[in-house]
Amino acid sequence: MNIGIIGASGYTGAELMRILPLHPEVEVTYVTAHTYAGERVSDLYPHLHKYVHICFEEFELERASEAADLHFIALPHGESMRVVPGLLEAGATVIDLSADYRLKDPEVYSRWYGVEHSSPGLLGDAVYGLPEIEGKRLAGAKLVAVPGCYPTATILALAPLARAGVLGIENVVVDAKSGVSGAGRSLSLAAHFAQAEGSVKPYGVGSHRHTPEMEQALRGLSGKECGLVFVPHLVPMSRGILATCYVRVGDDLDEREIDGLYADFYAGSPFVVCLGRDRFPETKAVCGSNYCHLGWRLDPEKGTLVVAAAIDNLVKGASGQAVQCMNLVKGWKETTGLEGLGIFP
Amino acid sequence: MNIGIIGASGYTGAELMRILPLHPEVEVTYVTAHTYAGERVSDLYPHLHKYVHICFEEFELERASEAADLHFIALPHGESMRVVPGLLEAGATVIDLSADYRLKDPEVYSRWYGVEHSSPGLLGDAVYGLPEIEGKRLAGAKLVAVPGCYPTATILALAPLARAGVLGIENVVVDAKSGVSGAGRSLSLAAHFAQAEGSVKPYGVGSHRHTPEMEQALRGLSGKECGLVFVPHLVPMSRGILATCYVRVGDDLDEREIDGLYADFYAGSPFVVCLGRDRFPETKAVCGSNYCHLGWRLDPEKGTLVVAAAIDNLVKGASGQAVQCMNLVKGWKETTGLEGLGIFP
Amino acid sequence: MNIGIIGASGYTGAELMRILPLHPEVEVTYVTAHTYAGERVSDLYPHLHKYVHICFEEFELERASEAADLHFIALPHGESMRVVPGLLEAGATVIDLSADYRLKDPEVYSRWYGVEHSSPGLLGDAVYGLPEIEGKRLAGAKLVAVPGCYPTATILALAPLARAGVLGIENVVVDAKSGVSGAGRSLSLAAHFAQAEGSVKPYGVGSHRHTPEMEQALRGLSGKECGLVFVPHLVPMSRGILATCYVRVGDDLDEREIDGLYADFYAGSPFVVCLGRDRFPETKAVCGSNYCHLGWRLDPEKGTLVVAAAIDNLVKGASGQAVQCMNLVKGWKETTGLEGLGIFP
Amino acid sequence: MNIGIIGASGYTGAELMRILPLHPEVEVTYVTAHTYAGERVSDLYPHLHKYVHICFEEFELERASEAADLHFIALPHGESMRVVPGLLEAGATVIDLSADYRLKDPEVYSRWYGVEHSSPGLLGDAVYGLPEIEGKRLAGAKLVAVPGCYPTATILALAPLARAGVLGIENVVVDAKSGVSGAGRSLSLAAHFAQAEGSVKPYGVGSHRHTPEMEQALRGLSGKECGLVFVPHLVPMSRGILATCYVRVGDDLDEREIDGLYADFYAGSPFVVCLGRDRFPETKAVCGSNYCHLGWRLDPEKGTLVVAAAIDNLVKGASGQAVQCMNLVKGWKETTGLEGLGIFP
Repeated sequence: MNIGIIGASGYTGAELMRILPLHPEVEVTYVTAHTYAGERVSDLYPHLHKYVHICFEEFELERASEAADLHFIALPHGESMRVVPGLLEAGATVIDLSADYRLKDPEVYSRWYGVEHSSPGLLGDAVYGLPEIEGKRLAGAKLVAVPGCYPTATILALAPLARAGVLGIENVVVDAKSGVSGAGRSLSLAAHFAQAEGSVKPYGVGSHRHTPEMEQALRGLSGKECGLVFVPHLVPMSRGILATCYVRVGDDLDEREIDGLYADFYAGSPFVVCLGRDRFPETKAVCGSNYCHLGWRLDPEKGTLVVAAAIDNLVKGASGQAVQCMNLVKGWKETTGLEGLGIFP
Repeated sequence: MNIGIIGASGYTGAELMRILPLHPEVEVTYVTAHTYAGERVSDLYPHLHKYVHICFEEFELERASEAADLHFIALPHGESMRVVPGLLEAGATVIDLSADYRLKDPEVYSRWYGVEHSSPGLLGDAVYGLPEIEGKRLAGAKLVAVPGCYPTATILALAPLARAGVLGIENVVVDAKSGVSGAGRSLSLAAHFAQAEGSVKPYGVGSHRHTPEMEQALRGLSGKECGLVFVPHLVPMSRGILATCYVRVGDDLDEREIDGLYADFYAGSPFVVCLGRDRFPETKAVCGSNYCHLGWRLDPEKGTLVVAAAIDNLVKGASGQAVQCMNLVKGWKETTGLEGLGIFP
Repeated sequence: MNIGIIGASGYTGAELMRILPLHPEVEVTYVTAHTYAGERVSDLYPHLHKYVHICFEEFELERASEAADLHFIALPHGESMRVVPGLLEAGATVIDLSADYRLKDPEVYSRWYGVEHSSPGLLGDAVYGLPEIEGKRLAGAKLVAVPGCYPTATILALAPLARAGVLGIENVVVDAKSGVSGAGRSLSLAAHFAQAEGSVKPYGVGSHRHTPEMEQALRGLSGKECGLVFVPHLVPMSRGILATCYVRVGDDLDEREIDGLYADFYAGSPFVVCLGRDRFPETKAVCGSNYCHLGWRLDPEKGTLVVAAAIDNLVKGASGQAVQCMNLVKGWKETTGLEGLGIFP
Repeated sequence: MNIGIIGASGYTGAELMRILPLHPEVEVTYVTAHTYAGERVSDLYPHLHKYVHICFEEFELERASEAADLHFIALPHGESMRVVPGLLEAGATVIDLSADYRLKDPEVYSRWYGVEHSSPGLLGDAVYGLPEIEGKRLAGAKLVAVPGCYPTATILALAPLARAGVLGIENVVVDAKSGVSGAGRSLSLAAHFAQAEGSVKPYGVGSHRHTPEMEQALRGLSGKECGLVFVPHLVPMSRGILATCYVRVGDDLDEREIDGLYADFYAGSPFVVCLGRDRFPETKAVCGSNYCHLGWRLDPEKGTLVVAAAIDNLVKGASGQAVQCMNLVKGWKETTGLEGLGIFP
């Protein structure tokens, strides 16, 4: 199958180009990037030296439709919704890595992203691309909205608790730590080496756009409102997200019940590795891989459960997850092309 | 005044040797280290090239008493209490960077540190060396117990709230991030470069020895029990601690009141910099300095106050704070020898 | 085919365990590690969670012979030669990642490694496992001596020049920069995070054991003595080696000739990527991959050619190259199991 | 004395603001930055929280002349020469950190920097601000041209050899490694965290602007032409330069002679620390300090001397050295305000 990548010059686009040559069913035939149109992929990204004969192109709908049957959209939010409707109408399958089709309510979208949604009618059709939760709904989907990196880590950490009804509106704190590639390839002082190296800092406190996405997904599992206090931090590493979640559970759950909730929830999920009680994940163990490592500990004296999830923000938090979604959409084995283990040390 | 450093080969000892040449009132005349006895300081630590004529010695009480009037103890917990009583009896002033004299209750000490306290009678005399809280009690003290790095950051972040009575036994989460030098100079896999680089991970979840020390200090300010859920994380940087504190305050406090609490509490504290509302600290801004940067944000919708404190774990979290204590003990200006700003970028 | 890994608890052993599940022809059935005998692989290395049912064993020749047909030896030098002869006698194929069978002259071995060689008779049989040079000789080999990481990068950078007769005994300087994983998993101050982070330093100047190995290989290509001044440096990153080579060529070569030498030499080498004239490699572009990136520039005014090679020290510099050798020994496609591109950024 | 910093928003300007509060003879009274005019210094640089009441201003000659007696110029090359003549005419002392007054020959300047020099008449008056070489000429100087970071490290490593006549036109290779802050505060992909982290790469091979500056200074010491092959590399750390120099000396020098050359040359230089024979420097040992650490080893078999110098590029390589120059210009003790040791670990 021929694959297009729209907005391919950013890190999630590059990561798709890294992953897809390992996938036996597909071939990348069309990559677009406005700024780099006409340039070789391998000139921008030497690690993609296999793409020495493929150049970035300007996006054109007609050319896109001819060149590929399935498109990954790696554009910034707001730009994605300008191309998705046309691609769908032209019959393509679309897997969108932007935020544009993640939220079901267009008003919530416009409040957090500051623009009106231009195709609100598609929001209902879009399947949220978190296979561990929406797995069955992905088969045959035409439009998939792949979650962001913070939501992926946080939801995977909390989903079993949400389904068990343990999450309320004021008992959850999520302290997340992200590598700097999460800020993308766009230049900024926060992502300038000399500023980010040797430093850790919170950012976007109280105003991060991923909060409504997480609350929406957890509400879907729980059947009731879930409220998160979510604070992301920038950590001096390139890749990786660790979401440390604090859930005040009182004496509602004991350790065996927690073990059971996680084991049950992830029984059929090949990419979620439960490290088990009192063992905590580290981001490096999943670097470059599509795995999510989970660990937890109950502090009965404080009535608090600490759950931590580690993922690679560019793989399970973006491009790997998008490929996992493609596999389920197309009915291929879920792990196809994604078998690689973490690059450690 | 002649200064001794007992256990000088570790990072806090080395940091004292780095700081003290900038202090006009003192001279380092005696440094001990069992493993390196007879070796030049500058051979072990090239950055201390000024110490080319000073060698590490084996600790001997008589020699120590003659060589110096004030001793910094940079030994591991358990070893410190073997030398402190003798030094005090010999008339020296002792500023102890270990954990041995921080906890007031010897039973709590033995529960968390796994050994009986050998000089419990001194616990009552020891002044807790956090000048921002115990400042006046430090004048003329004979024995100072300098806080650990995590407690320093956490207590400075929470002290104004504790004194205001806002902290309870189940409304506080502290998610702390530490650079790897916090693990000291002793070799371990966790502090091995290839394992720590590019990775963030929780450790000591639910069992960190600093928790009772923090709860004791906050109880002292609050007049009632304070309970913390405290989870430390290792972050790939050499220096720095960031303590992100989540306090569920409901609608008890508004922003102006919070501003007021912090401004009042730290009005006379030259080393605490309140960045102000909605501005958060980064560890790099205090690297190599004795400053603590504080920032906060109230999320009224979630009823939660987020406060973050950044310090250099080896300076304000250890050796710089010890020098600050010495200044107050001796009646010198609090900032003497500690005026350096953070090394940024 | 069943595969054994002898000395599997170090980083090159772990890297073999990471790579081999992607190889369709083999299965890891036997892993040994003296210190960790009886422990699960996944407990020591969480990124190898697929090995949850495989435990490290003590090495025993009989068990080894039964369990596997081909063994990778990832033991330190000096230990490898204790097990290799037995395995060969038992009929196994051996791919040795240690230094024990790299040097042809047992006296050179004992001079640099400080021990007598216990099986000098095998030195002549061992094939040097650098496929780009010895490719054809590897088919059917029983004993392969995989080069070290520094020699791999240096020889790949210089081989076309050696074959062209450009290298002499005093016109080559090699300044190499290595990530800290090159020091292995054994703890040391040099590899302690707080010491290595934020620092670059030379080490082993004038006495590095890899020098005779490099000179032997270049002499083999050149037909005359080649002398290198080789200085390795430790750089604060986990993986990667960059070898910057300075060759005084006078006006013997022009740019087109150099282009030609490299293009010819590496025409059939799938893992060597010539970036072309005036483009230089960066280690991150090959991280986690088996590729070697090469770039060069001739400074005609100074009569000097600068050639730089970048590899991942644990992949092309060790375990990936060992798998590449296995492929050639067994007659499989050279790239089998090694198709992954670099993990960037 | 009142001090102005022209172009204060970059890293060398910020470093001057960090250092000068520790200097007892001066006060910073005027800081300019076009982009940030009107903003508080402490808002841009939280580590400079002492500057909470000082704002960046637009440069105006009249205001500058009134506000300060001595000006540090931290502007990019080409911009510096637009303000320096005016300041000199107004009677100020000028210490210029840009490249504009380093080269004596305006044609060499225009060839390497691509612009005509607008005040070539001042080039003869400017004193090259490397106190270890030009120390006596600095007293009372009106215009000082502070060397770049690469030239400082390289020249300090090679100066004793230059003066001894050992350097020729084709026997020196300098392989330099720099932290990323050397690229300044301007955003670029090369200095983007995710690109620079975990990677080492050469850049500017054969075309680096610092080469003529180094050759000019060495020629001045040697009395004859000196030629360098100079290749800079970017290393994933914020601060620090290591210059590894390879000098083919044949059998002209033995180890004692080399020891003597270095000891003699640096006998009166408080900031140069000769580590001695076979001991090599590491950048971290000088981080945040004005020291230069030197080490060397002679390989008699290869006829090559390896000398390495480590400095902090922003201190001894820029702002610290500028303050050292000011001390000598004004007749103050050379080390005033610069006594701090390296921040290690």
